[in-house]
Amino acid sequence: MDSVQTFLQEYIHEHIPITQDMAIAVQTVTPQSITVTAQLAPNINHRQSAFGGSISTLAILAGWILLKHRSRGMSPAPTLVIQESTTKFLKPITADYSAYVTNTDAAALEKFDRTYQRHGKARLLLKSQVDCDGECCAVHEGLFVAIARPQA
Amino acid sequence: MDSVQTFLQEYIHEHIPITQDMAIAVQTVTPQSITVTAQLAPNINHRQSAFGGSISTLAILAGWILLKHRSRGMSPAPTLVIQESTTKFLKPITADYSAYVTNTDAAALEKFDRTYQRHGKARLLLKSQVDCDGECCAVHEGLFVAIARPQA
Repeated sequence: MDSVQTFLQEYIHEHIPITQDMAIAVQTVTPQSITVTAQLAPNINHRQSAFGGSISTLAILAGWILLKHRSRGMSPAPTLVIQESTTKFLKPITADYSAYVTNTDAAALEKFDRTYQRHGKARLLLKSQVDCDGECCAVHEGLFVAIARPQA
Repeated sequence: MDSVQTFLQEYIHEHIPITQDMAIAVQTVTPQSITVTAQLAPNINHRQSAFGGSISTLAILAGWILLKHRSRGMSPAPTLVIQESTTKFLKPITADYSAYVTNTDAAALEKFDRTYQRHGKARLLLKSQVDCDGECCAVHEGLFVAIARPQA
């Protein structure tokens, strides 16, 4: 695991502790893409498949961690929050699963960064996909906002 | 705690074990309404407020548990799943929080029950609200489906 992965995984496990209970791990990380995974066992439901709340959670984190990663080094550091989250559940998830952002075109991401740097606030819709055993089992849209932290 | 609450809380804790980690509890239960609560501590995020994934999860459960409760005694017993889930996050949640279904008009619920009994399948949009300290902090729409279990 490289140092960026380690930083991001430790960050979420420390600051969003339910991600530890869900056995969520940060896998590949680049400025344009990120993959997060979750184990099925702690996220199981009454149908022996992944619980909807746990599926939505992993999809939200895929987007949030991508923006968190891109915002390292920005000054002032933004607070990143989700304003709206929509998950469509397509197929039951019956094994460990992964999520990644699918609409990572460089122009949109760079515009988001620039808008934040200029105005102290920016908004971006990120689409993510949740896969299991090589199949798309859920799709997610998350509207994220970066806001400059109030000065202490 | 009455026996219906006990049954439903034990059911989710056993069959959706992440609800235990989230300290989710079933409170009031009637055929038209249900309230579920979550403690802030296990659901905290990097801003010392409730994590978006945990907020969506509680809202999903408010709807799912209401339908689970109504379906007791139906034959064949339905499998209840969520097809689509949308959460709008309105305000940070900085204490323990609760969720309940808001569009529980008896006619729509009874139509859902009848459709399931006749056709072995029914679909219902449930709206729920997440409150903290007496304020509405998030709203949720969940499209739920009841499907007759395949015969063994």
